[in-house]
Amino acid sequence: MSTPASFSEETRFVQLDAPLPLECGAQLYKVTLAYRTWGRLNAARDNAVLVCHALTGSADVDQWWPGLLGPGRALDSERDFIIASNVLGGCYGSTGPGDLSPVTRRWYGGAFPAVSVRDMVHAQAALLDELNVARLALVIGGSLGGMQVLEWAALYPGRVAAIAPIGCGARQSPWAIAWSEAQRQAIAADPNWRGGDYSHAAPPAAGLAAARAMAMLSYRHWREFQRRFGRRQREDGAFEIESWLRHHGDRLVQRFDAASYVTLTRAMDSHDLARGRGGVPVLSMPALVIGISSDLLYPLAEQQELAALLPNAQLALLDSPHGHDAFLIETATLDQRVREFRATLMRPLTQHQPEPLACKL
Amino acid sequence: MSTPASFSEETRFVQLDAPLPLECGAQLYKVTLAYRTWGRLNAARDNAVLVCHALTGSADVDQWWPGLLGPGRALDSERDFIIASNVLGGCYGSTGPGDLSPVTRRWYGGAFPAVSVRDMVHAQAALLDELNVARLALVIGGSLGGMQVLEWAALYPGRVAAIAPIGCGARQSPWAIAWSEAQRQAIAADPNWRGGDYSHAAPPAAGLAAARAMAMLSYRHWREFQRRFGRRQREDGAFEIESWLRHHGDRLVQRFDAASYVTLTRAMDSHDLARGRGGVPVLSMPALVIGISSDLLYPLAEQQELAALLPNAQLALLDSPHGHDAFLIETATLDQRVREFRATLMRPLTQHQPEPLACKL
Repeated sequence: MSTPASFSEETRFVQLDAPLPLECGAQLYKVTLAYRTWGRLNAARDNAVLVCHALTGSADVDQWWPGLLGPGRALDSERDFIIASNVLGGCYGSTGPGDLSPVTRRWYGGAFPAVSVRDMVHAQAALLDELNVARLALVIGGSLGGMQVLEWAALYPGRVAAIAPIGCGARQSPWAIAWSEAQRQAIAADPNWRGGDYSHAAPPAAGLAAARAMAMLSYRHWREFQRRFGRRQREDGAFEIESWLRHHGDRLVQRFDAASYVTLTRAMDSHDLARGRGGVPVLSMPALVIGISSDLLYPLAEQQELAALLPNAQLALLDSPHGHDAFLIETATLDQRVREFRATLMRPLTQHQPEPLACKL
Repeated sequence: MSTPASFSEETRFVQLDAPLPLECGAQLYKVTLAYRTWGRLNAARDNAVLVCHALTGSADVDQWWPGLLGPGRALDSERDFIIASNVLGGCYGSTGPGDLSPVTRRWYGGAFPAVSVRDMVHAQAALLDELNVARLALVIGGSLGGMQVLEWAALYPGRVAAIAPIGCGARQSPWAIAWSEAQRQAIAADPNWRGGDYSHAAPPAAGLAAARAMAMLSYRHWREFQRRFGRRQREDGAFEIESWLRHHGDRLVQRFDAASYVTLTRAMDSHDLARGRGGVPVLSMPALVIGISSDLLYPLAEQQELAALLPNAQLALLDSPHGHDAFLIETATLDQRVREFRATLMRPLTQHQPEPLACKL
């Protein structure tokens, strides 16, 4: 494995020695995890912060959350040792469907096993072991990232001092599952898909672009579209909103793998804190649950429910017209909220009092 | 042409003698319109009611709106002469992409011209001429049907005594355009699509099913999914919501043509009462604008705006958890609202006072 860097501008890779057992019963061998870090692990080894990315994100927190990362920010590269890794099943350097199987020596493709959010977290825990990080001061992330945050708290409560799940719920709702399923159907309608066993020279680009167009609707809000696009048309007659959707589809096709997309949406579908546990476990560490006022994919009611399920949680409302994506857009507000939350964690624990749930709403 | 029936259990057809000029500049020759009627045209010829159907509807009002049609109902087959026709561009008997062009003697397919809501209304007007119906006591419809209602009022104000547009706005929003565009992309991702020139033996079924799955999300609401499906799984591991989506996709594929679907969604995108008119025209006939509390596709704000634009409108709220589709589901409530509205129309016009906008909210 690579030596952990004190400050890493580059993506590094760890290959896990032990096979990784998955919830589905399969095992993955020679799992590689891509990761990046910012800052240094201090002598007390108590300043590590784990950042978990969303569906099409990566370990490059500086690219998708620049407003939260840096000196004096919520993810303070001068104070914290910040770690982010590409999720298991992803396509930004960690083992996923686009890789060669060390067993069959063929591309995984459609044979890549089902992974769950819990599998992702176990893989991250193995990475942290390699990095000599025993305990996390904070685990933070939005959407699929928020699901990982919650499973970190459930699977490794002794390693997690505080959590900040954003724009997700205690479980993936049938509504969110339906969005993912319709997108998977669009990918499967592309002849290049071939059940996931497609050639990398001929990926199911049209299907993935259609899925992304659909996903963009779930990430935004009608009021924003009205203000931003109205019914304006381009010279070729296309509505600007159509061009915008196609642009986002084309861009994702350039940077993302369709089989990873399907694998990761299925992992999101698996998300349910209560699954196999006889109910939602008691997650007693301080928690900042952030909900977005205009989120149509993970409506605010889900964060309200989540905050009520966590005994030491405060609920913060991110008031934004941008929908679910607000957690990637309203970074100044988000940065401030997370900094405020982290400031409360600095106080001696006996003084820590969660704010009443309703006060931020 | 067929002789208008006083009571028609069967679909009848009219072929228009004159070519139909379209907004796009093309003309359609030998346009056929499929229609059904219920009741009799009275001697004064003032009891005709036109019912306009939504995207995947048909002239079979008895099938998709049974709760509103019949003796004593809002569409009273003992009092009214009720007419419904399949829209131009459709696939239930009226001329559409699935038909042979009388000019080229080939299937239209991808060569079928763009039709607008206004084109649909002009074709319906020609049908009514054939049926000897000069004036309509009411034009009513939801979604795409509501858009036709509004264009009836704008294009033929002298023929329309009252209107009831449901679950639509004065124009198709960029939000609704985006939903349609993502669905069209899913259809286009299916190799059988071939730009619309597909074989009827090998239609783009997977693409159309994916589009329908997506559309079902826009027609419903997350709360309904939560209550109805939760995270329940079937024996094969599929979530029930996934099976439900696939079922709806499969069903539509059995009964609808993909090229019609694309043609009609583009017609919906064209909807804008103000287009080419220097603003929304003054539509002064009594209007009942019905909005649905949980409509995520045509949010209530659009019906509020529409009602404010119509000088003689009342706005009624259909309070329902079912989303946009509530206009097809909550038929008892809808029937009552429309009957109440029609009762106000029976009074001498001098006594007719629209109710204040806010009173139904």
